[in-house]
Amino acid sequence: MALGMEWLLRRWKELLPGLTTRALQRQYRYRCHHGPPHRAKRLVLSQLFQPLNLREDIVAGLESKPDDLTCKSQRLMIQAGLIHPSSPGCYYYMPYTVRAMEKLVKVIDQEMQAIGGQKLNMPSLSSAELWRTSGRWDLMGKELFRLADRHSKEYCLGPTHEETIADLIASQGSLSYKQLPLLLYQITRKFRDEPKPRFGLLRSREFYMKDMYTFDTCEEAARQTYSLVSEAYCNVFNSLGFHFVKVQADTGSIGGSMSHEFQLPAGIGEDRLMICSNCSFSANMETINPDQTDCPVCKGKLSETKGIEVGHTFYLGTKYSSVFNVSFHTAQNKPVLAEMGCYGLGITRILAASVEVLSTEDSIRWPTLIAPYQVCLIPPKKGSREEMGAMLMDNLYDSIVEVVPQIKGEAVLDDRTHLTIGKRLKDANRLGYPYVIIAGKKVFDNPPEFEVWNQNTGEIMFLTKEGVIELLSKVQVP
Amino acid sequence: MALGMEWLLRRWKELLPGLTTRALQRQYRYRCHHGPPHRAKRLVLSQLFQPLNLREDIVAGLESKPDDLTCKSQRLMIQAGLIHPSSPGCYYYMPYTVRAMEKLVKVIDQEMQAIGGQKLNMPSLSSAELWRTSGRWDLMGKELFRLADRHSKEYCLGPTHEETIADLIASQGSLSYKQLPLLLYQITRKFRDEPKPRFGLLRSREFYMKDMYTFDTCEEAARQTYSLVSEAYCNVFNSLGFHFVKVQADTGSIGGSMSHEFQLPAGIGEDRLMICSNCSFSANMETINPDQTDCPVCKGKLSETKGIEVGHTFYLGTKYSSVFNVSFHTAQNKPVLAEMGCYGLGITRILAASVEVLSTEDSIRWPTLIAPYQVCLIPPKKGSREEMGAMLMDNLYDSIVEVVPQIKGEAVLDDRTHLTIGKRLKDANRLGYPYVIIAGKKVFDNPPEFEVWNQNTGEIMFLTKEGVIELLSKVQVP
Ligand SMILES: [Zn+2]
Ligand SMILES: [Zn+2]
Repeated sequence: MALGMEWLLRRWKELLPGLTTRALQRQYRYRCHHGPPHRAKRLVLSQLFQPLNLREDIVAGLESKPDDLTCKSQRLMIQAGLIHPSSPGCYYYMPYTVRAMEKLVKVIDQEMQAIGGQKLNMPSLSSAELWRTSGRWDLMGKELFRLADRHSKEYCLGPTHEETIADLIASQGSLSYKQLPLLLYQITRKFRDEPKPRFGLLRSREFYMKDMYTFDTCEEAARQTYSLVSEAYCNVFNSLGFHFVKVQADTGSIGGSMSHEFQLPAGIGEDRLMICSNCSFSANMETINPDQTDCPVCKGKLSETKGIEVGHTFYLGTKYSSVFNVSFHTAQNKPVLAEMGCYGLGITRILAASVEVLSTEDSIRWPTLIAPYQVCLIPPKKGSREEMGAMLMDNLYDSIVEVVPQIKGEAVLDDRTHLTIGKRLKDANRLGYPYVIIAGKKVFDNPPEFEVWNQNTGEIMFLTKEGVIELLSKVQVP
Repeated sequence: MALGMEWLLRRWKELLPGLTTRALQRQYRYRCHHGPPHRAKRLVLSQLFQPLNLREDIVAGLESKPDDLTCKSQRLMIQAGLIHPSSPGCYYYMPYTVRAMEKLVKVIDQEMQAIGGQKLNMPSLSSAELWRTSGRWDLMGKELFRLADRHSKEYCLGPTHEETIADLIASQGSLSYKQLPLLLYQITRKFRDEPKPRFGLLRSREFYMKDMYTFDTCEEAARQTYSLVSEAYCNVFNSLGFHFVKVQADTGSIGGSMSHEFQLPAGIGEDRLMICSNCSFSANMETINPDQTDCPVCKGKLSETKGIEVGHTFYLGTKYSSVFNVSFHTAQNKPVLAEMGCYGLGITRILAASVEVLSTEDSIRWPTLIAPYQVCLIPPKKGSREEMGAMLMDNLYDSIVEVVPQIKGEAVLDDRTHLTIGKRLKDANRLGYPYVIIAGKKVFDNPPEFEVWNQNTGEIMFLTKEGVIELLSKVQVP
């Protein structure tokens, strides 16, 4: 120890006047030997299975295979140990990533349920029969993962579920118009045998998707439902703080008569977009003449950008309902084919796209709402002059989780005190906590002040404990 | 209308003295024409996609194929439209079931995280190479769903993830003992090509499972971890109110040196258990001499019962860590092979087992904690003498969700007022709401009283609005 117990006790007593000398001695004993008595209740970094926190040589190992690292988000997420490759296009999602994903799911659930969406869960194994009925068993070619069970019955692993949902609804007979608009969705793992999986979670072979299917009995109502879901998608992206564009899009193998994509402009985006600088027209290049440079609406100039598709909506009409005979009876008790829509949000793709568009070259940034953890607290290095700040940091941690209920479970204490603050701050940057709190020199002030980094704005503030609590009280978690 | 507006307004005014005549007239207008103004904010049954609520002929159609209905839970869940068969052993989980499942996941997350469990998510596609390394590619035979990708690389769909997690941990190099005990788990969809899928969600080919894997560096610590997880399992089952037994079990294709199953005694159970009436000894028949009738511990009498396996724990030792070279370095910086454990909880199986052991022959009962919705409110039939109770019911509904925060989103108003109360009560029984509240004759009392059915105890109470609120305030949701 650089400083003697006497001196520390005196300083602690000044800073924490509520504690008796005896309590302080107990604290000192715990700190120096076994950690404080409440240690187990604090979320400490050394206990979290997050590879970046565990090892220092893993990044080097991965950087030596630059071919595998095809974009910034993939590189940052692999280096930080947020994802770990298994087979081509398949990843382990590590605990920090699962936390971000669960938060994103909550945000999406809230928006889908706000418009009347009901969540179900459909099988992954989808019988060949259903896909033959729609004609997509052949159309999808090698993109479908196909397999046979022990009785040689053929299946694919569902990349999308138009056939499956249409079969379900048809099996209920002709339902009442009173159910309409019917909006059903699921958030499940999907499979697609990508010819060349790349860009990490942006184009993987296993991925999580939110897919919604809607049913109406006339085109007007179905278009209203289409708008309703589109607005909910805008709400999701706005709540994540994304700059996004909604462009007219090709209907591809899904089909239908109208389609839009939600795109995040990004250099590595695989979609080429044409955006009018004058009006709201914007389109995926696939939908227009590639030589066209003038906006078809206002004749303004079109400019090109690239985008990452994070959402896709399709107005399907009766493409699937006619094949599977999905009908509803109207108020006049007449059966009519359902007008369907389908809508996808790439859950794991949104996670990677967030990292791609928000991060710097060496620091991950998450949308605050879905960051794995909101706050990282970095106490001083063991043996440094500021070491007494460690106890203040413990005290700050305990106060935060006690007083700010939404931060409970969201604050991590970086207890790797054998490392410098600088080293740990660098790690914190690479994992992307919206707030990093450091016990620096100003913990000697009276009252003590902490260095608070707002990672998403770049702002650094010096705040007392009360100031920190006030700041964090404003943080929203889903 | 059976009763005139004048009379209704007079009665309403007596019962709801706070409202002006004008407000009451407005309410009357809404009720008689378009429903009350706040209608959209109430969760009304006619808007829920729950087949039982939608149609009256679906049960008949299914009952005509009695061969397919192999047990009570499957029959009740299919008849209520909680699940819908797709291909053999695969089911759609309908919205009520998804709600129950999400609650169960929360309960399990809480217990797993309370013992330091960290949640990750592993790929479903598991390379043949990994399974060949462990020797299970051949051993598992036809139970594995196998497939090849477009490059003819072979995979199975993971039924369990010992190989996958061992490969992940080994890839991190030799980790520090400071991480120990390391408890990692996931809650994901699993696949098993059952030769004869039956009993609905009790033995299906796609199912959700919570699988946890633990790592320690010595046998003593590993056995402590094994006990820790076993206790957490007991907590889960206790919080669901299950009567369960923990029996010694066979290690099967997973392997290891010690194993226990958590069993719910039930007539349709596929496991034969021997339980000592004298001491705590209990075992799966597979682990003992089938002729044995005396307890090997106390020589007491063994009695046989059947059980549904809902959890399974395995002490693996170094079976997988030695093959995949999963090691940790000790405090003395010496690398040692990890002592592993693995632990499964059948998520969808627990849902079905709940229904199996708690339900009557025609009424579903859920553990209160995970019931899809906590309360169903049944207003009077349209045109009946009690119709004025409808407004009181709306008012009760609004008060409940306003005053009891945990019941928000948990209360359903059965607005199918063209049906008698009796018919709707029967439906409510078949879906399994812990509480059903009926506006019966006592809504004419002053103060009005509602008929409250506690479905899990069979108790019927007559309570005022305040009484209902007090009762529901005690309800826990995860
Ligand atoms: Zn334009
Ligand atoms: Zn005994």
